[in-house]
Formats: sequence, structure tokens, C-alpha cells
Amino acid sequence: MSANIPSYSGKRLVILGGGFAGLTLARKLAKSEFQIVLVNKHNYHQFQPLFYQVATAGLEPSAIAFPLRKVFQNNQNVHFRKAEIQSVDFDKKVVHTSVGTIHYDYLVNAMGAGTNFFGNKEIQKRAWGLKSIPESLALRNHILMNFERASSIDDEKKRQELLTVVIVGGGPTGVEVAGALAEMRKWIIPRDYHEIDHRKVKIAVVEASGKLLGHMSEKSHKAAEDFLKSLEVEVYNGIAVDSYNGEEVTLSTGEKLPCNTLVWAAGVKGMPVDGIPTELIDKRDRIAVDEFNRIKGQEHEFAIGDIATMETEKYPHGHPQVAQVAIQQARLLAKNLPRMEKGEPLKPFRYSDKGTMATIGRNKAVVDLPQFSFRGFWAWLVWMIVHLMSIVGVKNRLMIFINWVWNYIFYDQSLRLIISPAKHPKHKEVPPANQMETSSN
Amino acid sequence: MSANIPSYSGKRLVILGGGFAGLTLARKLAKSEFQIVLVNKHNYHQFQPLFYQVATAGLEPSAIAFPLRKVFQNNQNVHFRKAEIQSVDFDKKVVHTSVGTIHYDYLVNAMGAGTNFFGNKEIQKRAWGLKSIPESLALRNHILMNFERASSIDDEKKRQELLTVVIVGGGPTGVEVAGALAEMRKWIIPRDYHEIDHRKVKIAVVEASGKLLGHMSEKSHKAAEDFLKSLEVEVYNGIAVDSYNGEEVTLSTGEKLPCNTLVWAAGVKGMPVDGIPTELIDKRDRIAVDEFNRIKGQEHEFAIGDIATMETEKYPHGHPQVAQVAIQQARLLAKNLPRMEKGEPLKPFRYSDKGTMATIGRNKAVVDLPQFSFRGFWAWLVWMIVHLMSIVGVKNRLMIFINWVWNYIFYDQSLRLIISPAKHPKHKEVPPANQMETSSN
Repeated sequence: MSANIPSYSGKRLVILGGGFAGLTLARKLAKSEFQIVLVNKHNYHQFQPLFYQVATAGLEPSAIAFPLRKVFQNNQNVHFRKAEIQSVDFDKKVVHTSVGTIHYDYLVNAMGAGTNFFGNKEIQKRAWGLKSIPESLALRNHILMNFERASSIDDEKKRQELLTVVIVGGGPTGVEVAGALAEMRKWIIPRDYHEIDHRKVKIAVVEASGKLLGHMSEKSHKAAEDFLKSLEVEVYNGIAVDSYNGEEVTLSTGEKLPCNTLVWAAGVKGMPVDGIPTELIDKRDRIAVDEFNRIKGQEHEFAIGDIATMETEKYPHGHPQVAQVAIQQARLLAKNLPRMEKGEPLKPFRYSDKGTMATIGRNKAVVDLPQFSFRGFWAWLVWMIVHLMSIVGVKNRLMIFINWVWNYIFYDQSLRLIISPAKHPKHKEVPPANQMETSSN
Repeated sequence: MSANIPSYSGKRLVILGGGFAGLTLARKLAKSEFQIVLVNKHNYHQFQPLFYQVATAGLEPSAIAFPLRKVFQNNQNVHFRKAEIQSVDFDKKVVHTSVGTIHYDYLVNAMGAGTNFFGNKEIQKRAWGLKSIPESLALRNHILMNFERASSIDDEKKRQELLTVVIVGGGPTGVEVAGALAEMRKWIIPRDYHEIDHRKVKIAVVEASGKLLGHMSEKSHKAAEDFLKSLEVEVYNGIAVDSYNGEEVTLSTGEKLPCNTLVWAAGVKGMPVDGIPTELIDKRDRIAVDEFNRIKGQEHEFAIGDIATMETEKYPHGHPQVAQVAIQQARLLAKNLPRMEKGEPLKPFRYSDKGTMATIGRNKAVVDLPQFSFRGFWAWLVWMIVHLMSIVGVKNRLMIFINWVWNYIFYDQSLRLIISPAKHPKHKEVPPANQMETSSN
């Protein structure tokens, strides 16, 4: 199979993944001399920072997803393929995908990161991840369905399980999900679910390191914990999860929490692809690259974003796996690739840290800038504006803005729909893309 | 299992189905003396007239769905249960559902209609229906996925199959889907799918009766056909579908059309429920009711909307299966039930036909009012305003309005997302609601 890419007299750049890294690179080079083939599992770019709002019924998937083909409507030299990556072959310079084999002159792996269960198969089997829109929707449906189930049973023990969400990991995703669920408990449950005592809905965050938002400042750790506690989220700080049998979480203290929903937000890892020399892959499945994001030992193969690990003096274990690193690496590579073609020297990557932020709830956010940090209402406003401006598509921005304003005024979205997929005999015939969702690309 | 409905000193009214009929009845009686239990397969009311826009990526599901619990936030005496109906037992006065058995004093079956394949199992297995939001989303995903597949193969025959949509049935759903797909072919395909020649996308409507929009006026039949032809939809009028093997549709003329997507919009039938005396069920699976919508021979059991068939002088084969009949029957029953309680005489149902309409595309619609009919731009505007005002929820109205205006100006939505469900081991544990989607309730 050939994937039906038109032949081209110039060089072909194949980009694997349409996340922040891959999309930025493809857009920057869309009008260049390169023929670009963008391969992604989904036919849309997803805006990861707002997955948690999809999972908590605050936004629709379409508000934070953008069709990749629409981005490149005016770029005849960009070819999109919705496909799974099967393997790469550096010697033959080909990528094997579910829609066929694609030859490349330059290859950029921008496949991002998936959930890291650190080898715990028991938890992997039972926990919910938040690394894609389908995963976020599945979690939303599950949580809403649990409220339905809790309404229609009279077994108190079972009901408490259904009403408990334990979130493992106190990074941005963990605190954001916990905060949004706590607001749902406060504003939605008492109105919608007459048979549920909303005080029995239990939301807990378990963070082993002892610090919420560990990558942020001391003040932010503290503020995040205070904000969560003010929303009556139970914070188990400095405590780990030992095991989970689907009904009960056992903590490292020995305490047991009845719990039907375990959200795993405790770590990410790269998405391994067959064909990449194993000695280049670190223990978090990231690919070792040099200062130009070139895969070590290769000439025309690169990796950018969450899947790459570049050891520098400042970041001896690689850069943080955040959108800004991915975007900056993509922008630099978009300049380095034409330089390579012209035989000019390449420029090395230097990360410019613009700061980090996280939101916990209404008027509750933390912002760390390189020089100073702040929190509360202004941080929350800055968080919203930055995210609104970062999203792809004017209509998406408008839709998110309306949703946020609506929610701010009325404390009540109307997105609590459990849309279960229709089963159809034809579905069997629809390839492929229905594999277990763990990727963020 | 008991479904956990609180006990109540007064009478309990159980309503099966939250479509136009069931929702209207529940709203009208929400503040009455009755305890109301509303049972529906989905946790949302769906606005059927716009399913076709979800299927053709013009609207998001959330714009035409409204959470049923949100409707009754302020009605402590209304209890919603998301459940499948398993059977009814008129003698014991109970309904058996997937969440338990519910006793009733009054029962109203408002379960609506599903797709009628007229016993053709071969077609049922391979055709796509449009009778629920999950079905509409599944069709959308399928059509978009076919464009993706057509982009990445070089087999001309296979590609033509993937690019062909044959719609069986020239009623409102059939012509509306055909028109919307034709507009997608014109405005979207050339921009998004560089490898597809949009002229090869084939859209056909097959209508056996010889009349499009058969329930409307002669002028509307003609206008619908003209509008479709102006959009280059192939109309096979007075021709039936003989068979479909998944790759090829064989028409009654012997003509064969290569076709991967067969949309079945050729008829509806009631949703049979175990326990209703079979002699009361007609050949289209509707339940025979008297002039008060009481199931024949019963005292406290009723059926309203698409699932009921009431033979009257003017409508010897029952009323048309449209929203207006469902709503008017529900309104009348909401008055008759309290009358029954008080021992007052009931009022018989008289259908007031307010007219019918259908839209084929931009500026192309037909409206038949009782006195006169019109078509074109003004009909299209009336169609939009009527539908906008009929939808439940101010936010939904706002979202649909923005989408329509956006689409009118830019000819291009950004909703072309193939969101495939995430598979999760936990999904096995989530009951039930994932049965084959055929219901409209």
C-alpha cells in the first residue's frame, strides 16, 4: 500500500503527529519548498490544556478540536493522512502506517506523550486517563453515568463507590479536574440529581511528592492546596496509591477509599514506535535528540515536543513536557530544515521559559512568571485570556468564550449529555483508529 | 431491583420516553399532584428535526440535545431514570426497566418510532439510520472516514464506492440529508480533500413513490426535486431499491450503483414493548388507542405520539408521525389525566394541522400552510426561525444561531471531527444503554 501521496520533485518532509509540535512545524513550512505529509491518528488537532473541561462537561469536544485538513485548505503541498504509525525504518527512509508506506527525505517524530502508569498493569486496566478527546469524553460519560446509577440504587456502599472520584497526581491536570468536579458537585448535583445528597460526592487528590503543582513555585503549591481545600476536595499529600481493585483504592498509609472512578494524572511517557534504536529510548520512552532535535546518530530524522529528550546543562533530564517547549522546538526546526537544505549551519535549541499557570476553579488560579507570581482572580483572568488566544480557530475561540461567560453567569452548562456510541454492523468495516486511546498526538 | 423511586402518597404517573410527546407531558404536569417518573434511554431530549445537520457536520450534538434532568431542576416531584424499557405488565401495573421495576398508577407510552426496514434484513444490516443522535454521529463519522479512506487509496473502483452516498426515501429526512451533503460536496470537499475530485462524489435519492416530500403539496414535490437537481443530487423517482450487498445498490430498474454508504430514510415504525397485547399492535408496530389516547381496552394506560395509532374519520390510518401530533396529544393528555382523577369527562383528540415544511439547502426550502404554500428564500427563513424557536434551551438556540450564521457567511463549519470512542476496559462495566440504536425516544 502506498498511501496515495502525489509524487514530488523536491524533498518530502513527513511529520508524525498533529499536536502542538507537529502542527506548528507543518504550518511554518506549509508554503516552503518541502512537500509535507502530516500523519495523525485523529483528523483533528486537540488542545490538550482544556481536556479537563471536556471531561467535566464544561466544553464540547468541537470547541477544543480543529480539523487538520481545514488548517491546510490553502496549502496544496501539504497532505494529511489519518493513520496509525506502525513503524519507522531509518535505513529505507520509510514510515509504515495503517494506510500504507510513506517514503520520506526528512522525518519528524512529534507523536507526543501518553499516560505513564509506571508499569502498574492493575491500575492501567482500571484507571481513566486524560490524554485525548476520546478519553476525556469517555471519562465524562462514565462520571455522568455513575451519577445516574447512584440515583437509581438503594445500596449505600455501592452508591458511595459511584459517588467517589479519586485523582492520582497533583499536577495541572489533577488539580484542574478536581477543581472542576468540585464545582460540579456544588452547583450541578443539588439541582440535577434530586436523589443524591451532594455532600456524599467525594473528590480526592492523591499526590505522592508532597507538593501540588510540583513544577511551579512554593507559593503556587500552597495556593493550589488552599484553593482545593476551600472547594472541599480532600488532598492526600505525600501519600501514594498502593493498589486499586476497581472498588477500593488502598493508599500507602493503609487507608482504603471506596471508589468507582480512579483518574490517573500522575505522569506521562513517550509513545514508542517500532524501528527506533532502543538505546536511544529513555526510561520514560522518550527519544534522545541532540541540540538540534535530531535523533541521536541520525541525519534526517528528528523528534520534537513531549516525545524528545534533549539533555542540556540547564535541563539535564530533558525539558519539561509542556506546550511551550513543543512549539519553540517546532519553530526552530522550521528554520533549521531549510538551513540544512542550503548547507548552512544549524542553530541549537534554547528554551525560553515564559512561565506556567494552572486553574483550580472560578476566580482561583495560579500564575508563575519568570520574575514574579500571583494567584486568585487576576491569575484566573490571565489563564482564561491566554488559553482563549492560544486555541486554533476563531469560531472555537468564540464558542469557548460564550461557554465560559455562560457558565460564569449561570453556574450551569447544558452539556451533561451521555452520548453513547451507536453500534452498527458497519462499524467493523471502518478502519482503523479505534485502538485504545493513549496518545495525545 | 426497585429503581429507588421515593414513595409518594398520591398517584404516580410513569412516562416512557422523553421525546416531543413524553417531554411535553412531563413538563405540563411537573407541578401537578402527580408524582412523575420519566424513563428514557438517553439522559437527554433530542431534537429530531435537526438530526440531519448533526449527520452532515453542521451542528454539534449538544446543540440539539438537552439534559432531561436540567429541564426538571425545580420539580422535586419529577424523577428521571436513564433506563431501557424491558416490558410492561398491565395487570400488575408495573414497568420492568434495566434499573429496576417501577410501579405505576398511570402509564403513558411515548417511546416514539424507529427505522422501518420493512423486514429487509440484508439492508438493515448494512444501512445507516438517522433516528437518534448517536446514529447521526455514527453516520457523520462514517462519511468523513470514507473521505479519508478515499484520499489515501489509488483504487478507482473502491474510491467511487467510498464517495457515493445513496439515500433511500425522499421524505423530509431524505431530502434534507441529500441537500446538506450536496452543499458539503460543493463547499468543503474541494477545500479540504486535495486528493479527491469533488465531482466524483455522488449523492443519490431513491424514492419509490414517485413523489419527493409525499406528505406535502404538489408544488412542494416539484420544488424539492428541482432544488435537489440544482444541487446536482441524482433523483431516482418512482424507482425502488431491490438489494444492497454493501458495495453495490441494485435498483428496481436493474441499474447498479457502487456505494459504500446507504442511508435508510424510507420509513418509521413503533418501538414494540413486551407486554402490550399483540392484537393492539398494527403492522407498523404502533399501538391502537382510542380518541383519548388510551390504549384500547385499558383504563390507566395511554400511548401518545409516533407510537400511537388513533383511527379517526379524517385519519383512518392514524395521524402523521410528526412532532405536532405528539405535542398536541401530550398537551391534551396533560389536561385529561387530572380530569380523570376528578371523575370529569375526558376531551377527545382533534389534530390541528399547522402545516409542514422541509429544507433542501441554503435559501432552498418548502413550506405548506393550511391555506397556501411557498418556497425558496422566505420558506428557508421561516424554516430556520420555526426550528430555532422550537428547540429547548436558550443556550442551544444561541449556539445553533451562531452556527447557522457562521455557515451562511463562511460556507464552512469546523465540525468535521471524526471522534471515535475511546475503548476502555471499564466500559464493560458501564451499563446499559449501549444497545443498537434504533429508537428516537
